[in-house]
Amino acid sequence: MTGLLDLPTPCLLLDLQILRRNVARMAEAVARHPGVVLRPHMKTAKSAQVADLAAPGKGPITVSTLAEARYFADHGFRDQIYAVGIVPSKLDAIAAMNAEGAEVKIITDDLETAVEIARHAGPLEALIEVDVGEGRAGVPPSSDLLLAIAAVLGRRLAGVISHSGHSYAGRSVGEMAAIAEAERAGVVAAAERLRGAWHGVRIVSAGASPTALYAPRLDGVTEVRAGVYMFGDLMQAQLATHPLDDIAVTVLASVIGRYPQRNAVLLDAGALALSKDRSTEAAPRDWKFGRVLDLEGRPTFGDAVVTRVHQEHGEVRAAEGSLPLARLPVGSRVRIAPNHACLTAAAHPHYHVLEEGRLVATWERVNYW
Amino acid sequence: MTGLLDLPTPCLLLDLQILRRNVARMAEAVARHPGVVLRPHMKTAKSAQVADLAAPGKGPITVSTLAEARYFADHGFRDQIYAVGIVPSKLDAIAAMNAEGAEVKIITDDLETAVEIARHAGPLEALIEVDVGEGRAGVPPSSDLLLAIAAVLGRRLAGVISHSGHSYAGRSVGEMAAIAEAERAGVVAAAERLRGAWHGVRIVSAGASPTALYAPRLDGVTEVRAGVYMFGDLMQAQLATHPLDDIAVTVLASVIGRYPQRNAVLLDAGALALSKDRSTEAAPRDWKFGRVLDLEGRPTFGDAVVTRVHQEHGEVRAAEGSLPLARLPVGSRVRIAPNHACLTAAAHPHYHVLEEGRLVATWERVNYW
Repeated sequence: MTGLLDLPTPCLLLDLQILRRNVARMAEAVARHPGVVLRPHMKTAKSAQVADLAAPGKGPITVSTLAEARYFADHGFRDQIYAVGIVPSKLDAIAAMNAEGAEVKIITDDLETAVEIARHAGPLEALIEVDVGEGRAGVPPSSDLLLAIAAVLGRRLAGVISHSGHSYAGRSVGEMAAIAEAERAGVVAAAERLRGAWHGVRIVSAGASPTALYAPRLDGVTEVRAGVYMFGDLMQAQLATHPLDDIAVTVLASVIGRYPQRNAVLLDAGALALSKDRSTEAAPRDWKFGRVLDLEGRPTFGDAVVTRVHQEHGEVRAAEGSLPLARLPVGSRVRIAPNHACLTAAAHPHYHVLEEGRLVATWERVNYW
Repeated sequence: MTGLLDLPTPCLLLDLQILRRNVARMAEAVARHPGVVLRPHMKTAKSAQVADLAAPGKGPITVSTLAEARYFADHGFRDQIYAVGIVPSKLDAIAAMNAEGAEVKIITDDLETAVEIARHAGPLEALIEVDVGEGRAGVPPSSDLLLAIAAVLGRRLAGVISHSGHSYAGRSVGEMAAIAEAERAGVVAAAERLRGAWHGVRIVSAGASPTALYAPRLDGVTEVRAGVYMFGDLMQAQLATHPLDDIAVTVLASVIGRYPQRNAVLLDAGALALSKDRSTEAAPRDWKFGRVLDLEGRPTFGDAVVTRVHQEHGEVRAAEGSLPLARLPVGSRVRIAPNHACLTAAAHPHYHVLEEGRLVATWERVNYW
């Protein structure tokens, strides 16, 4: 792993071969559904170079912040959905981007906000968010509110959008397929109700990484959104969305202390570098704050995990058995596979990109808002 | 609250009056111990303007990353302790800062690292980290390793340093005072053993916010370190280190969805803007992902808390009783008091500084490494 000994730690590594493999796996899964477009969610990667791989030909993409929308528009990704409920104070910024050539579609599930969208002087298009069982945001497909919002939006209505984040709690491919089918049925029902009321519904957008991968059918859906699949993580691997070894982002860390009495080492990657995400706590296998790998990204430290984090300290122990302390002197380096790639990646300003074991590039991230 | 309706959300607010009050409280507490210096830990604030208040006269300060060390040295804070175990690969950077006039002291508990420090051609001084009961890093005060590391460091030995992070688990002032006294006894014992072996021990550094505040005596200690006290948070308030209302940093967020059926609203501040820190989970009062305040920073939404977070969504519900939804339309704004100020602040690039309810400045943070 040329160069990994010269990087300052902690820092974020991105394995290009794994990224390409993950991108190809999802592209193939979506290609099973003729006519359905993949609109990758860039909230995980927040990088134009990653978007060029996941959404070749400059789009379409999904974004989660105004900062992402601006950044990706500047990088030529015109066709975007900003998939977090919009507020009136953000409309000017979106309309300004659209006036300059972007096509950033916004989403809402609120009648008063729809009024503001309809009234706005600038170019805006909106999707109505539909709740298909997640219980986070959205109007029920059968609600009067769905029709009322559409009536207010009028020609600014672009379509409907749903999210099945509850699929992350799925514990089998069958469960995820069932959630995907319930989502499909719900969002398509919403679209059909709107069409029945003579509204134009161009976009019927569904998705999350597990459902995009395992949906048995997508009739009536025009596009699927998914993001974390690009990188994968310890949580996603347990949803069978990728093999455990196909985690593209890892945190490079140095051993800063070694404690034979308690068979532990400390790393300079703690709560800030790894995040405090504990997604795997309720999963079949609890990876604590991350899985410890060697410089080549292999699990040659057995079942070592980051057991505790402080702001800049991460404690490593063996989950069971013992840690090979002789291979972990102070100053030696390890890589940590994350529980939740979105949260861990967000802690870092850029990626050190690896290809065939060599550092080939540094790619920036558009963090913050 | 002039200006709070014009800021993009989510963003971080810093109340200057509360900050000054918190800084004064700690300065008074430490002044009870003649001859003991406060060396504020800047890992929480990561801001030169905050350091100018907490460490007037340009120091001394504590830092947790190389990025902080460089930044604060550039802002005139020469006397620093970089209080995370050093690794050989970081010695060149520290020595280079010191060669340019900084006095960044490093810490170690490792014999091989001490050898590298002793051998290094540049100007370096180190403290030996002593474990006083936290079980994170450090050598026991009674260990042979303490003397061995000192012998290797020779004239580069500046002193000893301890941390009582386990004081955060204290549940009464009495408990914290007992932990503080155990830490004092341990770190002073280490210093005395070194002096008994004819080593010069200039610095005997102890601390954490609760113990700095409640230490009954500090005989033999030359300085105390503390950081989170500057801002305070929902966890610290439960350690009685400050009143619940004296939390200087809050996240400004917009309501992006309103759901009468489940008596909830969604905010545009989620896991990234608030962090996933759940410090208060085991505390007497569990504030979930943060306490919801109005624009003036008052708890006029009753016991509303952020119950769930997704990357850019935070769900607000009443802990008990009901949320006043009429006052929380989409587009309205609230402030969230954090569980753990260090983690929440680290998610943001800068502070919007409030004084007497008005925005008076924007202060940068030195995030990352």
